[in-house]
Amino acid sequence: MKKVSILGSSGSIGTQTLDVIRAYPEDFKVVALAVDSSIDVLSKQIQEFSPEMVCVYDEKRAADLRKMVGNGVEVVSGMDGLVACAVIDSADIVMCAVVGMIGVRPVIEAVSAGKDIALANKESLVTAGHIIMPLAKEKGISVLPVDSEHSAIFQSLQGQDRSGLAKIILTASGGPFRGKTPDELKSVTVSQALSHPNWSMGKKITIDSATMVNKGLELMEARWLFDVDIDRIQILIQPQSVIHSMVEYDDGAVIAQLGTPDMRLPIQYALFYPRRMYLEGERVDFYSIGRLDFEKPDMNTFEGLRLAIEAAKTGGSMPTVYNAANECAVAEFLAGRIGFTDIPRMIKDLMDSHQVIKNPDVDTVVGIGEEIFGKYMRTERSR
Amino acid sequence: MKKVSILGSSGSIGTQTLDVIRAYPEDFKVVALAVDSSIDVLSKQIQEFSPEMVCVYDEKRAADLRKMVGNGVEVVSGMDGLVACAVIDSADIVMCAVVGMIGVRPVIEAVSAGKDIALANKESLVTAGHIIMPLAKEKGISVLPVDSEHSAIFQSLQGQDRSGLAKIILTASGGPFRGKTPDELKSVTVSQALSHPNWSMGKKITIDSATMVNKGLELMEARWLFDVDIDRIQILIQPQSVIHSMVEYDDGAVIAQLGTPDMRLPIQYALFYPRRMYLEGERVDFYSIGRLDFEKPDMNTFEGLRLAIEAAKTGGSMPTVYNAANECAVAEFLAGRIGFTDIPRMIKDLMDSHQVIKNPDVDTVVGIGEEIFGKYMRTERSR
Repeated sequence: MKKVSILGSSGSIGTQTLDVIRAYPEDFKVVALAVDSSIDVLSKQIQEFSPEMVCVYDEKRAADLRKMVGNGVEVVSGMDGLVACAVIDSADIVMCAVVGMIGVRPVIEAVSAGKDIALANKESLVTAGHIIMPLAKEKGISVLPVDSEHSAIFQSLQGQDRSGLAKIILTASGGPFRGKTPDELKSVTVSQALSHPNWSMGKKITIDSATMVNKGLELMEARWLFDVDIDRIQILIQPQSVIHSMVEYDDGAVIAQLGTPDMRLPIQYALFYPRRMYLEGERVDFYSIGRLDFEKPDMNTFEGLRLAIEAAKTGGSMPTVYNAANECAVAEFLAGRIGFTDIPRMIKDLMDSHQVIKNPDVDTVVGIGEEIFGKYMRTERSR
Repeated sequence: MKKVSILGSSGSIGTQTLDVIRAYPEDFKVVALAVDSSIDVLSKQIQEFSPEMVCVYDEKRAADLRKMVGNGVEVVSGMDGLVACAVIDSADIVMCAVVGMIGVRPVIEAVSAGKDIALANKESLVTAGHIIMPLAKEKGISVLPVDSEHSAIFQSLQGQDRSGLAKIILTASGGPFRGKTPDELKSVTVSQALSHPNWSMGKKITIDSATMVNKGLELMEARWLFDVDIDRIQILIQPQSVIHSMVEYDDGAVIAQLGTPDMRLPIQYALFYPRRMYLEGERVDFYSIGRLDFEKPDMNTFEGLRLAIEAAKTGGSMPTVYNAANECAVAEFLAGRIGFTDIPRMIKDLMDSHQVIKNPDVDTVVGIGEEIFGKYMRTERSR
């Protein structure tokens, strides 16, 4: 039986992680759960899964929860609480499904504590991949990707000769605005940006998908997860989202993972790895799909993607700036205070004014993020 | 350094095997070569690769070759000679690239002698898979598939949880007559049937591809190679021949191998397995491909495929009848003596009049084949 701590248990990935665990009660035990502020959801999860410890990031809400649940479970709060859930003795694996840079410290602490990581928080690798991956190697733990693209790449690398890896082909649906001109994007509303054609996800990641910043972050994440140069990662638009990503080898063979758009697949693969267990749900029906299309990404319309490649190639602290700037910009956009095309503009402005620090340590990374958040964030971060 | 015996060295797969070996002279040594009758090609191969032993199946041609090459190489002939090349002491791996049931005995003998098999001869598994696979397991040797579909399936199984295999998706280009009605096939000429849209192959296999009998034989081969019920093998038309085949797992994940149509890839993968070495050649360019299409196979137009599924489900000696009938029919068609749609008709007639023998031994299998050849084959078999 694997003991699991879930950071971000009320979100999209968190609840689907609990769906997988619910289907295999003999295989998993939930030992810790952490949320930002959704104590109503959390209290139900406590009743169902009886964790030892829960964290409510928001102090006030944590106090409210304590009154609701009594002494059966330890309620912690703030960053210390989140880290406590990440390093809890009893956990074998930590599902890190918080959104944003808030995941950096808990991931590093969990790796330091020797926990396997199921990683849905891409920001931690984007900003601190140069710290996390060597540490993971030193500690001998696995960083198991939990999004459909990186899981697909990870699956496509299993049993293959890693020394023969030629390139990674990172697929993208292209989001709701594929095929639009830069001008057409100017008038995009929040509700338009929130309607993704294929995937049902959280708000932040849905906006990131509409700007294709998400693909930029995934590119940076892939670079660290699979130890591959940015130049060897190709982005391919595959609008039907059936091919979840691919790996090309030196002999010209391409190995791909395909599937229906269902986040429970990468979640379950990470939790059971390397076992394949039955997962209820739709299967890819090639007879009815009929066709798959491929396109080159449009770097003019999706300036956020172009900037990501620039930030990734610059390296050092630049990806942190890219990511923090985007987190702020998305929050501003969701709050209705800036337009859709202001998102890449804001990222570009912050990147342009940043003096790159090579090989930043975790405090520097978090510090840069907080400085940007302090300056630009006028709303609560969505997690 | 791996020592290789090549049965069928003058054919399409044989010469491409030598291309791969030529590119990696440090990794391979050719110890034996066997051809049907092409002694001009063989004598050049002897000069270049200096094998210990060569076989010319045709006795007269063998005698001619002996005069040409002197005493530097042992020249053997007939089935005994072919088997001698298959079991030669010095070989680590035997590439079996002869076409037709002539491959059955040499493959069984090579497996018995503990050689790894690179298998391009599908007829041996189609007719004697129930003998070869258990023997391979007993001897602890590898049967490495050398055609693009089975190699793709094999590659898609590497590092994966075999117990979670849900189904095999065997792809097919559909051949030159995809989309035609049964009536339209009646007037097909030999040269039309020999022009395959994607793959450059030998004559027999090109006709088999046009009738889709080839896919039927591959279905039977896959059944043995991967120990999967016929019902769990789905045939999928993928006209661009980019997806070479796929495996679906219990969690809904599909792993696929894609590539350009280049037989050197499965050849090289089998020879170097599990290593991936550089192979010169075109790569899949998804930006320029633009799209991939999928269709259900048309069992009315391609009756040969429908009959294959019937033969495979019947089992026992029926696949041998199916295969031998097809070998005869293709030879007759190539000789201009029967029409294109007479190929499945001839297969059906022979299947209808056959009394199935359950679990036939190798002599029975070969006997059934020879009986059919003796009765119907008016021309030399093409190899």
